[in-house]
Amino acid sequence: MELGTNGSYYAVIFTSQRTEGDQGYGSMADRMEQLAGEQPGFLGVESVRDASGAGITVSYWDSLEAITNWKQNQAHLAAQDKGKQVWYESYKVRICKVEREYAY
Amino acid sequence: MELGTNGSYYAVIFTSQRTEGDQGYGSMADRMEQLAGEQPGFLGVESVRDASGAGITVSYWDSLEAITNWKQNQAHLAAQDKGKQVWYESYKVRICKVEREYAY
Repeated sequence: MELGTNGSYYAVIFTSQRTEGDQGYGSMADRMEQLAGEQPGFLGVESVRDASGAGITVSYWDSLEAITNWKQNQAHLAAQDKGKQVWYESYKVRICKVEREYAY
Repeated sequence: MELGTNGSYYAVIFTSQRTEGDQGYGSMADRMEQLAGEQPGFLGVESVRDASGAGITVSYWDSLEAITNWKQNQAHLAAQDKGKQVWYESYKVRICKVEREYAY
């Protein structure tokens, strides 16, 4: 990942429970992932959903400003509205500063 | 969640790819989730794994000290060793400070 100028970066943890049936969700999710990838400050995304409809998506950004800009993107706002109306039973968003990391 | 004395809390984002076959993974994972829940400073955990073996687990803690203590727990250390040897093809751990959150 290309980090912010001070070497720090941010994670948005999105935990959600889907309603039943696709109802256009799959194609929207693909579109939003592609669109997020085109935003300034986007570093990457990891996403898992199981057969029960429980999902965790974590996206990574180089600044809080980049996260705010993406939250206010017009196409993303429309998806957020439909998410509340149709696609999600519930969700929670946590915006976090990554303090340290290690990998295997 | 009961937060730390200053109202802040921390998230550990664990993203992983499982090897094939159970090989004792399921019972270990249940045991570790129960044991984590007994640790001082533990606030909660959310975990999803899909059919391909990709998983994201996020655990929440009231301090960095609580996270360090859990990382060094004896039974957890043994599970970490076996994780590298048997259960995981790869994983990444990110320790994060939750800056803000909202829910639907």
